[in-house]
Amino acid sequence: MTPIEVEGGVTAPRGYQAAGVACGIKKNGRRDLAIVASEHPCSAAALLTTNQFLAAPLLLTRERLKRLQAQAVVINSGTANACTGARGLANARAVADAAASILGIESRLVLVASTGVIGEFLPMKNVLAGVAQAGRALSRSGGHEAAEAILTTDTFTKEYALRGRAGGQEITVGGMAKGSGMIHPGLATLLAFITTDAVVSPAALKSALREAARVSFNRISVDGDRSTNDLLLAFSRREGRRILPGSAPFRSFTRLLIEVCRVLAHRVVEDGEGVTKIITIDVSGAKSEKEAELAGMAIARSPLVKTAFFGEDANWGRIMAALGAASLRLEPERISLDFACGNRSVPIVRRGVGTPAARRDEAAEILKGREITVRVRLGRGRGRAVIHTTDLSLRYVEINASYRS
Amino acid sequence: MTPIEVEGGVTAPRGYQAAGVACGIKKNGRRDLAIVASEHPCSAAALLTTNQFLAAPLLLTRERLKRLQAQAVVINSGTANACTGARGLANARAVADAAASILGIESRLVLVASTGVIGEFLPMKNVLAGVAQAGRALSRSGGHEAAEAILTTDTFTKEYALRGRAGGQEITVGGMAKGSGMIHPGLATLLAFITTDAVVSPAALKSALREAARVSFNRISVDGDRSTNDLLLAFSRREGRRILPGSAPFRSFTRLLIEVCRVLAHRVVEDGEGVTKIITIDVSGAKSEKEAELAGMAIARSPLVKTAFFGEDANWGRIMAALGAASLRLEPERISLDFACGNRSVPIVRRGVGTPAARRDEAAEILKGREITVRVRLGRGRGRAVIHTTDLSLRYVEINASYRS
Repeated sequence: MTPIEVEGGVTAPRGYQAAGVACGIKKNGRRDLAIVASEHPCSAAALLTTNQFLAAPLLLTRERLKRLQAQAVVINSGTANACTGARGLANARAVADAAASILGIESRLVLVASTGVIGEFLPMKNVLAGVAQAGRALSRSGGHEAAEAILTTDTFTKEYALRGRAGGQEITVGGMAKGSGMIHPGLATLLAFITTDAVVSPAALKSALREAARVSFNRISVDGDRSTNDLLLAFSRREGRRILPGSAPFRSFTRLLIEVCRVLAHRVVEDGEGVTKIITIDVSGAKSEKEAELAGMAIARSPLVKTAFFGEDANWGRIMAALGAASLRLEPERISLDFACGNRSVPIVRRGVGTPAARRDEAAEILKGREITVRVRLGRGRGRAVIHTTDLSLRYVEINASYRS
Repeated sequence: MTPIEVEGGVTAPRGYQAAGVACGIKKNGRRDLAIVASEHPCSAAALLTTNQFLAAPLLLTRERLKRLQAQAVVINSGTANACTGARGLANARAVADAAASILGIESRLVLVASTGVIGEFLPMKNVLAGVAQAGRALSRSGGHEAAEAILTTDTFTKEYALRGRAGGQEITVGGMAKGSGMIHPGLATLLAFITTDAVVSPAALKSALREAARVSFNRISVDGDRSTNDLLLAFSRREGRRILPGSAPFRSFTRLLIEVCRVLAHRVVEDGEGVTKIITIDVSGAKSEKEAELAGMAIARSPLVKTAFFGEDANWGRIMAALGAASLRLEPERISLDFACGNRSVPIVRRGVGTPAARRDEAAEILKGREITVRVRLGRGRGRAVIHTTDLSLRYVEINASYRS
């Protein structure tokens, strides 16, 4: 059976409920607190940001994840609860305790995550009222409201769920994520939550999650900034016939998980702050996959490359300059570059030198599209990586010059 | 004698002539070709960009610098002659040959440099006419016109010269530089040319130049992008009583050189593309100077930090996030942060946590100034580095969205 897309995001798999409410953390009155809860304790696995200044909720979540089990996660937007010291950690714990009490479960089964402005304390009165309200509102169809409640500068919700078969069983993997600035994940990323009704051990879940993050969230960049609060968290069922690592059903499960993560990661890029273009950087011919990723990320991080795309200017020299500054050894005379949009493709660089087409209007024509692919061949080996990024627009600067006001 | 500032830029030291002319490489009719020439062959030393895609003129210059001697340099703006293959290299050689013929010297004593759009060929008819014109116009007072001719998106010329004493001799160090995008030097930087009438061997000149670049051009960043054409080139006299490395006069010479490079580098930052704020990041308490530099550069490269400064938003959490993502081990609870402008200073972070002042208007008040210092103390050791950077403004995006048009 080919996997099919299903509705419901994190509540698409059997056994999960969610809710999203507005409790006044955000000044604009939008939803700002979500709970995702399972009917039974789950296997839990997570990847956390590699930023060293781990936010308070992640310090608590990291500690609790050592038990490899969890049953619920409380997520607030508006305030990141990062760089808040002991008071921040006590607040995170109080949030988990409040949720545990409403849900009637042990507090150590409750995880927490936050996103928003760094350095501000959680407004605890609002947050605790929000936890109570969300706890009462939990439902099998609450995935969408939860996906709304975790947004910050995002302009749309990111939810996706796939249903497929693993061995004899039908399984569903659902997820939600939020962007849309400080997007340059390392190991983990932004906030993304995955649920599944597949029965998978915590270790197997973690290994599948790593594999999925490597080719999805870790291959996107909006602005090269890495958050203090990034978290990719997955819950799977514990009771029932287990899908064992290495088995064909496990590969089916991992494929579903990868696909859900890929779609969510791509939506984060699509909704990047101020985005007017989606740029796919397809690097091949590297000595290794890691090298291809390094090369692609060097291009994806260059403000000059990104502003040129915003201006629809085929200033490909900036791509070469960004590549040349990357930390891998390159031979200019082996490098090819193409721009593509839809089914049109234009050769831009051959053997390190600009083509006649690059100098004509053809290249500029391609850049008028919204989704553009930059195909880079390094001529050194068989390593390949596809990176998703965005342009850098006037709107990005406007958004981030006034984020807190 | 305290060193004093003198007029004339690269022609301030005795024995140098320069000229800058308009030969039609730039579409706006501005000066775009400069020659700086010495009366006699000089000791020559240079630092070249660490970008692997070295532009054609730098390939030629690097080759010729092996002889450690040079007498003239031809610089054009408007076109970088980078990623132009064998034809680009032949063009660079033809430019040097033409200048040598006009100056009546050997071609191998002529160096070349270019700056502008990457990937376009030099318009040779214009360039050769420009070389002839500049060769005829060389004069002892041509430093300013030469400084004009090397500009691209710069809004003012960057020239500086200091006169001081080294041992019993009066010596002068003059220089010019250009910015103002793709500024994130590594080892060498942008284009900067230094002349001196001090008598210094090529090896000694190179070592002084490295020392100067380390604390000047290598400590600035406008946009994190590193050019294919960066060059810091210095000429010194060969005949006369030599200033020997390790001597007190050599230290005096090096101090003059450092000061000239510092002023030029700071002017490059002041004139960064679209700049509305000059940000000084003063990192202390690192385990080493290198670590302090890494920490400072991580902040200087963050688009989110830079857009917050543009918006005069005291969003210090972004500084912490950028620090936390830097490649050095940090302990959040040891970190202090202050914002300062003029003689006012506000504590923002203490022991990794935001201060009450950070939450009040005081911090925002400071950011209304044009020159702002971010003081970071890491609490790990005695390493210190001061980085100069800029905000990221709407104008930066506008300039770079339409650079080629």
